[in-house]
Amino acid sequence: MTDETTPDVSARGPGAAAPVTLLVCVTCGAEGDGKPPRGEALLAAARAADAAGGSGPIEIAPVRCLANCKRALSAALGRADGWTYVFGDLDGASAGDLLEGARLLAAAEDGLMPWRGRPERLKRGLVARIPPLFPSKDRP
Amino acid sequence: MTDETTPDVSARGPGAAAPVTLLVCVTCGAEGDGKPPRGEALLAAARAADAAGGSGPIEIAPVRCLANCKRALSAALGRADGWTYVFGDLDGASAGDLLEGARLLAAAEDGLMPWRGRPERLKRGLVARIPPLFPSKDRP
Repeated sequence: MTDETTPDVSARGPGAAAPVTLLVCVTCGAEGDGKPPRGEALLAAARAADAAGGSGPIEIAPVRCLANCKRALSAALGRADGWTYVFGDLDGASAGDLLEGARLLAAAEDGLMPWRGRPERLKRGLVARIPPLFPSKDRP
Repeated sequence: MTDETTPDVSARGPGAAAPVTLLVCVTCGAEGDGKPPRGEALLAAARAADAAGGSGPIEIAPVRCLANCKRALSAALGRADGWTYVFGDLDGASAGDLLEGARLLAAAEDGLMPWRGRPERLKRGLVARIPPLFPSKDRP
């Protein structure tokens, strides 16, 4: 049973968007034929889309690896005072959806990425979400 | 392709074990028959095993939910200066393995749970791992 839509951290006060980190797994999609892994293309696409503007405060970085290999390509979105989300079943065209997810997470007063308005790919591709580990007061 | 065995954060200096948080999903395993979700039993077992001693500095807390419903029961292990691990396909007998994973993660100088010596259930049940989001210097 999913309870994914239920906010369960203390609400942040209203304020500016919080910085969000997008980690793109660059070991995903290695095909062993000398071509760069497909995760690298997703990372490049995310950076290009971010450079084109509009995605808010976001840091984009590669990671080796998210260990979500069964559902590659993979990426994670998180913010220090909020939840972290791992997504799978992505492809090279997912950059825009990831940036939209980053925007939603950055703007969320409660630190949770809202379900409503979330790109469909970030609903179906949700692998796991993790609350802020510290401080523990943010958990029930 | 997994690169899960490759350390890729800056090494911590030698020192005492770092505090680890174990989050057990207590929405997992709800059977709708008035019984508590099976995740609650796993949480209770983890607390009992920790109280029996030997697991090192660990905080154990419930979470609603990790959104890993397809592979319930679920739990996450993380430390603030290290990686966070999400596990699925757990059952009520997994508490000891989770505490052993916590011990390994707490003792890891590089903030990564070592593959060698990791309980089999935490190898097969690995759903995803996420590096420390901040500071970004910890990433390649």
